[in-house]
Amino acid sequence: MNAAAWSKDEVVEADREYVIHSWSKQGGLNPRAIAGAQGSWFWDYDGNRFLDFQSQLVNSNLGHQHPKLVAAIQEQAGKLCYIGPNFAEESRARLAQKLAEITPGDLKMSFFTTGGAAANENALRLARHVTGRSKVVARYRSYHGATAGAISVTGDPRRWHAEPGISGVVRMLDPYSYRYPDRGEGSAVYEGGPHLEEILQYEDPYSVAAVILEPVTGTNGLIYPGENYLRSIREVCDKYGIILIFDEVMAGFGRTGELFACNHWGVVPDILITAKGLNSGYVPLGAMTVSAKISEWLQNNKFWGGLTYAGHPLACASALASLQIMEDEDIVANSKRQGERLGAGLAELATRHESIGDIRGRGLFYGLELVRNRETREPLVPFNAVGEAAAPMQRVVKAGMQKGLYLSANFNVMRLTPPLVIKDDEIDFALEVLDEVLTLADEDVTS
Amino acid sequence: MNAAAWSKDEVVEADREYVIHSWSKQGGLNPRAIAGAQGSWFWDYDGNRFLDFQSQLVNSNLGHQHPKLVAAIQEQAGKLCYIGPNFAEESRARLAQKLAEITPGDLKMSFFTTGGAAANENALRLARHVTGRSKVVARYRSYHGATAGAISVTGDPRRWHAEPGISGVVRMLDPYSYRYPDRGEGSAVYEGGPHLEEILQYEDPYSVAAVILEPVTGTNGLIYPGENYLRSIREVCDKYGIILIFDEVMAGFGRTGELFACNHWGVVPDILITAKGLNSGYVPLGAMTVSAKISEWLQNNKFWGGLTYAGHPLACASALASLQIMEDEDIVANSKRQGERLGAGLAELATRHESIGDIRGRGLFYGLELVRNRETREPLVPFNAVGEAAAPMQRVVKAGMQKGLYLSANFNVMRLTPPLVIKDDEIDFALEVLDEVLTLADEDVTS
Repeated sequence: MNAAAWSKDEVVEADREYVIHSWSKQGGLNPRAIAGAQGSWFWDYDGNRFLDFQSQLVNSNLGHQHPKLVAAIQEQAGKLCYIGPNFAEESRARLAQKLAEITPGDLKMSFFTTGGAAANENALRLARHVTGRSKVVARYRSYHGATAGAISVTGDPRRWHAEPGISGVVRMLDPYSYRYPDRGEGSAVYEGGPHLEEILQYEDPYSVAAVILEPVTGTNGLIYPGENYLRSIREVCDKYGIILIFDEVMAGFGRTGELFACNHWGVVPDILITAKGLNSGYVPLGAMTVSAKISEWLQNNKFWGGLTYAGHPLACASALASLQIMEDEDIVANSKRQGERLGAGLAELATRHESIGDIRGRGLFYGLELVRNRETREPLVPFNAVGEAAAPMQRVVKAGMQKGLYLSANFNVMRLTPPLVIKDDEIDFALEVLDEVLTLADEDVTS
Repeated sequence: MNAAAWSKDEVVEADREYVIHSWSKQGGLNPRAIAGAQGSWFWDYDGNRFLDFQSQLVNSNLGHQHPKLVAAIQEQAGKLCYIGPNFAEESRARLAQKLAEITPGDLKMSFFTTGGAAANENALRLARHVTGRSKVVARYRSYHGATAGAISVTGDPRRWHAEPGISGVVRMLDPYSYRYPDRGEGSAVYEGGPHLEEILQYEDPYSVAAVILEPVTGTNGLIYPGENYLRSIREVCDKYGIILIFDEVMAGFGRTGELFACNHWGVVPDILITAKGLNSGYVPLGAMTVSAKISEWLQNNKFWGGLTYAGHPLACASALASLQIMEDEDIVANSKRQGERLGAGLAELATRHESIGDIRGRGLFYGLELVRNRETREPLVPFNAVGEAAAPMQRVVKAGMQKGLYLSANFNVMRLTPPLVIKDDEIDFALEVLDEVLTLADEDVTS
C-alpha cells in the first residue's frame, strides 16, 4: 500500500522535523529509530538488539509481535475494524463478559476507552454521580494519566504543569516506608486506613466520592503496600460509602505474578481500571470495570461518558486474543516464576553493589532504588531530578542500552518490568548487564 | 484464535449484561447487534441492511472495511504493532511528515493521541504554556470530547454532568443565525471578531491563552460560519497573541468537500486538531498539528504531554494508508460532488416538507433543522430534549432505520454525514427514504 520502506536516515530526519515526542524539549532529542521487534527484544536499523526490560511503557506484556496476537488482529481487521459504540458487537460483548469472569469479586460491567487516562476520567465522573459527592482522595506517589481529570489526581510532578486542574482533589501520603522510615509498619500511613480516616475527618467523609490509588505504585517508585493496607482502606471506604477505584493500568494482567495486583491481598475495588497489559498495547484500549452494585445503579441512571472509539472492535478482539494467550501459555505463572528468578538475582547483586538501597517487587514488577548511602538512604539523584542532577541514573540507563539492555529510571528508582513471556536466559542476561552497569552507580556511593 | 462466532442472542445477552454504553441508562437499552459492514452499508444478524448515513460517529469516511485500508492494517500488524513513543518509527514519522504537507499554511509538527479528546487536551495545555496565560475562550455550541479538559471547553449539555471542570473557561456565542435571526450578517456574533473583542475586553485579552472552536460546528447543529467569521477571529487572536485552535475532528479530511474545513475560508489555525476521518477510525487515533512558530517554541521548551499510545504504529500506518486512498480515489472531490447531489435533493424535499426549517451543508456535512413552523422557526423538539420531548425527532430516525437508512438527530437537527465514498444511487436512496419519513415530522407542523 505505502511506498517503499524508508531508510534509517529518512525515519530519523522526518521524526526530528515533524514528530512531537512526549514530556520533552524537542530540540536536541535524538531518538533511536527502531526497525523491528520480536518477543522480548527490539532492534534498531544498525542491527543493535535490545532486551526490552521495560516492556516499553510497561505494556508489552506478551512481548512484541506475538504471532497469535498478530493473527487475531489481522483476522478481526478483515472482519470488522469498527462499529459505533451504540451497537452490540461480538468482540466487545465477549471481552466485557470475559472481564466479568476474570476480575475479582463482583466486578461486572465494563466501559471501554482507548487507554488508562480516559478510563480513569470516566471512573472519577461516575463515582461522583453514584455518590452525589464531589471530592476525590488521591496519593502523591501516583500516575493516572495526562488528561485534565486524570492528571489532577496524579501526584507526580507532571501534574504541576497541568494546574490548575479539576477541583476537589485531596491528597494522602503513600506507604513508602523505605524512603520515610518513620512511616513503617504500624504507622497510620503504612496501615492506610488510619491515615485515610484522619484526612476524611478534616475533609468531611460524606463529601468524598472516591479514593483512587494504584494498589502497587508503578511509575512513581514501585511501592508495595503492607499486608493490611488495601483491606484497611477498603474498610474506611465502606464505612463512609466512598467508591474505591484501583488503577491497575500497569499492575494488572499478571504483571505482579497474580492476574490482578489486588488479588495478592484479596481486596476488591468498586471500580477497576485497566489498559496496557489488557492487550499488550497492540491496539489502543483501556477499560473501566465496575461492581455489581454500580452496574445495578447504571440500569436506572445515565452514564455520562462516551467516546467515538469506546468498545473499538479491533481493540476488543486483540484483548480477547491476548487473554486467551495468557491462559494457553500460563503467562501469570511465568511472571511469578521469572519474578522469583529476577528477585533472587537482584538480592545477589545487592551483596556486591552498595548503590542498591532497596529492592521491591513481585512477579515482573520490580523497582530498584539506588542510593548514595545505605545508612542515610540518600537517593542517588533527588526527587524530580532533571538534567545534570539526573545524570548519575542516566549514566546507568545509557550503559545498559550500550550493552543491549533497555532500562529506565524514575528519579532514583529503576523500573524492571520485562515482558511476562521472558525466559530464564533473558533474565540472566539482564542480571549480568545490571551487574556491570551498577558499578557506575556504586562510584557515587559516599559511605 | 477465538472460539466459534457467537449467535445474535449470545451477543445481545452478553452486551446487555456486561457492556456499559455511552451517554445512556443501561436498563432498557436494546442495542441492535451488528454482524458486518462493507462500504457505506452495515447489517444486523437478521440480514437487515442499513445505509450508514452518519458514518457511525462521523468517522467512517472511507466506508466500512475498505479493502486497501484493511490490508494496510494487516500488513503493519505483521510488521510492528507497537513501539514506545520515545523512539523514532517509520509509520509515525511518515504520517507526521504527510500531515505537514497536506495541512494548510505552516502547520508543521504533530503529536499523536488515540482520539480527538486527548488531542484537544494537549492543545489547551500547550497553548497555556506557549502564552503563559490561563484562560480559554470556547463556544456554547461545541463538542470537544469527554475528558475533563475537553468537556470543560465543550458547550453542549453533556458538560453539565462533568462540572465543575477546569477553571478559566470563558464562553462566546455562536454564529447561529437561523435560530437567532437577530444575529445575522453584520452582527457582532455573526462576524465573530467583534464579539470576541467584546468578550476579551471584559476578560483581559492578555489573560487568554487560546480560542478553541470547530470551524464548522458538528454535533451541536451543523453550523457554518459566514464568509468573514474565521478570518476576523484570526485577526483578533493575532492582535492579542492568542493561540487559535481549530477542532476539525469531524470536519477534517474531506468531510466538507475540502480537505480541511478551514480551507473554505483560507484561514489557518495555530493548532489543528484531527481524528475520525484521519483514518476513518479503523484504529483509534487523533492528532494535534502545530504551527511552525509553536514547533520552534517546542525546540527549547518542554512539551508537557504524553500517553502510552502516542504515535501508535498500527494507528499511524492506518492513517497513512487512508490518506493514500483519499488521493488515489479522489475522495474529497466525491465528497464535494455527492454533497451537491445531496444538497439539491434536500432543497427539493423542502418544497414538499414543511418541517424542514433550514438546510446547512457543504460536502457531506449536512444538517437538516426541523421545525414546527417555518415562520416562528419553533424547533420540532426543544434544546436538550430527552424522553417524550424528543419523540418527534426519534420517530423520524426510527422510521428511517426501518426503511434501511441510518440517521441521527441532535435535538431538532438531523445530521446527514454519509461516508465520503458514497455513490449516486445511495444518495438517491437516502433522499427517497427521507422523503417518506419526513412526513412524520410534517405531522407536527402547526402552521
